[in-house]
Amino acid sequence: MGIVFIAAGLAYGLLAPAPPVLAESPDELPPNQRLIRLDEIHEHNRTADTYWVFRGDKVYDITDWVPNHPGGEVILRAAGGSLEPYWNIFTIHQKQEVYDVLEQYFIARIDPRDLVDGKAPTGQVEDPFKNDPIRDSALIQHSERPCNSETPESELRSYITPTEKFYVRNHLWVPDLHEADSHRLTIELFDGEEVVYTVADLRKKFKEYSITATLQCSGNRRSHMTQASRPTVGLQWGVGAIGTATWTGVRLRDVLADAGLDLQDPDEDIKHLKFVGAEAYGASIPIDKAIDRHGDVLLAFSMNGQPLPRDHGFPLRVLVPGHVAARSVKWLSKIVISDEESTSQWQRRDYKCFGPNVRASHPDWDSAPAIQETPVQSAITSVRRVQADQLLDSALARVYGLEEDSVVLEGYAFAGGGRHIVRVDISPDRGHTWLQAQLQEDGAKMGASGSPDDHRAWAWRQWRAAVPATQVSGKFCVKATDDSYNVQPDTFEPTYNFRGNLANAWHRVPVSRDDRPS
Amino acid sequence: MGIVFIAAGLAYGLLAPAPPVLAESPDELPPNQRLIRLDEIHEHNRTADTYWVFRGDKVYDITDWVPNHPGGEVILRAAGGSLEPYWNIFTIHQKQEVYDVLEQYFIARIDPRDLVDGKAPTGQVEDPFKNDPIRDSALIQHSERPCNSETPESELRSYITPTEKFYVRNHLWVPDLHEADSHRLTIELFDGEEVVYTVADLRKKFKEYSITATLQCSGNRRSHMTQASRPTVGLQWGVGAIGTATWTGVRLRDVLADAGLDLQDPDEDIKHLKFVGAEAYGASIPIDKAIDRHGDVLLAFSMNGQPLPRDHGFPLRVLVPGHVAARSVKWLSKIVISDEESTSQWQRRDYKCFGPNVRASHPDWDSAPAIQETPVQSAITSVRRVQADQLLDSALARVYGLEEDSVVLEGYAFAGGGRHIVRVDISPDRGHTWLQAQLQEDGAKMGASGSPDDHRAWAWRQWRAAVPATQVSGKFCVKATDDSYNVQPDTFEPTYNFRGNLANAWHRVPVSRDDRPS
Repeated sequence: MGIVFIAAGLAYGLLAPAPPVLAESPDELPPNQRLIRLDEIHEHNRTADTYWVFRGDKVYDITDWVPNHPGGEVILRAAGGSLEPYWNIFTIHQKQEVYDVLEQYFIARIDPRDLVDGKAPTGQVEDPFKNDPIRDSALIQHSERPCNSETPESELRSYITPTEKFYVRNHLWVPDLHEADSHRLTIELFDGEEVVYTVADLRKKFKEYSITATLQCSGNRRSHMTQASRPTVGLQWGVGAIGTATWTGVRLRDVLADAGLDLQDPDEDIKHLKFVGAEAYGASIPIDKAIDRHGDVLLAFSMNGQPLPRDHGFPLRVLVPGHVAARSVKWLSKIVISDEESTSQWQRRDYKCFGPNVRASHPDWDSAPAIQETPVQSAITSVRRVQADQLLDSALARVYGLEEDSVVLEGYAFAGGGRHIVRVDISPDRGHTWLQAQLQEDGAKMGASGSPDDHRAWAWRQWRAAVPATQVSGKFCVKATDDSYNVQPDTFEPTYNFRGNLANAWHRVPVSRDDRPS
Repeated sequence: MGIVFIAAGLAYGLLAPAPPVLAESPDELPPNQRLIRLDEIHEHNRTADTYWVFRGDKVYDITDWVPNHPGGEVILRAAGGSLEPYWNIFTIHQKQEVYDVLEQYFIARIDPRDLVDGKAPTGQVEDPFKNDPIRDSALIQHSERPCNSETPESELRSYITPTEKFYVRNHLWVPDLHEADSHRLTIELFDGEEVVYTVADLRKKFKEYSITATLQCSGNRRSHMTQASRPTVGLQWGVGAIGTATWTGVRLRDVLADAGLDLQDPDEDIKHLKFVGAEAYGASIPIDKAIDRHGDVLLAFSMNGQPLPRDHGFPLRVLVPGHVAARSVKWLSKIVISDEESTSQWQRRDYKCFGPNVRASHPDWDSAPAIQETPVQSAITSVRRVQADQLLDSALARVYGLEEDSVVLEGYAFAGGGRHIVRVDISPDRGHTWLQAQLQEDGAKMGASGSPDDHRAWAWRQWRAAVPATQVSGKFCVKATDDSYNVQPDTFEPTYNFRGNLANAWHRVPVSRDDRPS
């Protein structure tokens, strides 16, 4: 397209990096008095050693910011020119926090000889989002460009999330890929050789598998961490950055074997499998997951029996069950068999958790591993008061021996790594006492675990619990246990991380006036 | 041996089962007035439908107790006779809680015609513990018969736990197996066919592997749960029911393949692998773990370069890295390829966790899965005050920038399932603020993960942290994070389970007078 932009992440930037150091400072004037010609700015483009941009008549050296940019190196395409056309497209940048970050890199003003009406010419760029699909109006939008929208609570109560209500997590625009069959996937082998399959080849050559798997964004419940602890960098998702679908495609391991990878005895230097999406997103997974006989990694072309919607990767995506959704790369165009992780921002920086002691300003990025498998998680999606004579759901009444006014809670629980949920506990009183919730069996009809051979659990378990209204006080809490007997932490602060990733402390929901004993 | 006993577990019995119901009650007299002849008692032995025992002149129908007996069905060997000779051996039973349990099953007195000096003859039994090995006096003994002894904190600070200081967790006596080479292992295939290997066969026929792996009892830190929450059933271990050794043996998957199991495409009905020890202990693991290319399950015959000590399974044990130690069956005599779990007490009852809402009196045993992989764990093993001028360890001083009086903490962190420890956090003030501990690299010298191919992490990570004395207040806390970003729960009560298994809330250690700012 020949156009350039700054990825969405900058706008989430509450980061406070070290003050900029000028790579070369021809004079010692303060920024406000130093003047630079436009031609010199243009030289500091992505091919240079230092990167300059301008906004209005102010010039910024963003070299030191680039590694901290949540959207990755896409920001470099703006180097040497004006930020404004990109911020008009990535409107998520138009807020004070972002302006504040930028201001730290202010180095000079543009020479008035290059200004027209007090501003430098910004140029025009085509809107890459203009062909984005139209989304269901029920989705709760956190950002429009790129689209980031979560599933409303009411739609999280079915085992299979309705496709059009499935949360959308886009890092950039939706690529314009209209031809399914002719879409090409290139596999780069460890020796550099490339093998190409069209989607039609994949369908024709390999056996199809269907897996029911839950995908969860690492930012799911981030807003809970922010509220309970401290500010976090990122979209402030509620409980709806998660959903379950039945994905159909071919097994990645079958394709890799066909392409020439020895699954039984792979080269010991092969450690990772990198994925690249058509819009430039990149991520990787450990090779062990990709070739595990029960790993169930798919190259998927359908979702709930229909071709993948454009927002979910049409015509081809990876589906890495049990791992954070950020590894299930959409609009898949390339796979690289490698000795190293993807070098993308989304592998090496964004999707990591640091400790509560690590500040956003200067983390040692390599000191934490990229998120792959996710920890045990649960959430409450519905709280309703039920009168004793309205206990229509006799099964629930029987299980809990309900004979009085009650509060019925519903929600989900999910563990990464294929670990089964073995128990969900509910507290009606801030965590002092606990009742065991009833795990719903809906999933059992379609393979309880979501895995075709039932070796791993790839899908969430929904649960329901009823609490006599007289026992309710304070807040409702929920926590789940997986089959490694890992549990959720009680509170957020001890797992606080500045990116707000993997927020999985107990979900606490206030008791409304109606839920309290009357 | 022809002798009979009651396994150790009864003594831990805080269980309160339903009152006994007599299977047949020839008369309606109260127990104190009902008289029974010795001959009739003898008939209620292990071949009968109901099981009677006596103590002094009192007769007990223990039929309903048998399924609740923590030591399993070994108790049946006492049926039809006197308890006393066994309790003289399993001295752990000689306490009030056990007497109270027994009294619930009182059904009659022995007819005076069969009494001598007011008691019935008890007979003699040989002491099965008489050939138990002599243990290191530094071990902290929780029970003598069977031997259950933990490693003192001072010995938990080396990466490899000294063999003679390694914790001992025996359920019964130590079998008298003197011949290593001729010891026979029988493998029962899925069709019932049996293949036998001697230890000499195993050594000759299969490639040797060494794995450095941590074994941890499910009861490690149980005493902390008891202290923080409520009474638990079991030995009250501190932080020392854990240890790390280098185990050498042959890979179970190689032996299974040789015996006839198709590792690539096993019968879909094969789900578990049962292990039986020479002393009758039994447990099982999922077949997937056993045949996983990177599962690293060994049939081990040596520990830290020496033949297995008798307490640790001489001449052959299973080593199931990443799983609770209860699955690493010692004195291995049989393996059964099966469609079901081991039917032993130790698989179906003892090594499970229920929720805080489940009482010991009537759990639904099948409602919780047997513990296999364990959750993330950590503990503090040393706290010492260091004066500024005594900061001999310059590396530590450098890392933490120590310039003042400090408190130096040391400990371990471990996760099950081959998950790596990625971070350990320390709080000097009850969990309000957290510092990151330094993970020790000792392990790196011998393969950081303990796995020969580094695919999984089988061994603990030791850590060290220093806190300026002025920051210390309240209690020290430690918590670890694994590479699925699972963490430890803040407190014990929400994960309380009546068996006190997998106690992994933050380890809290009081600040001693010396550690507080002066």
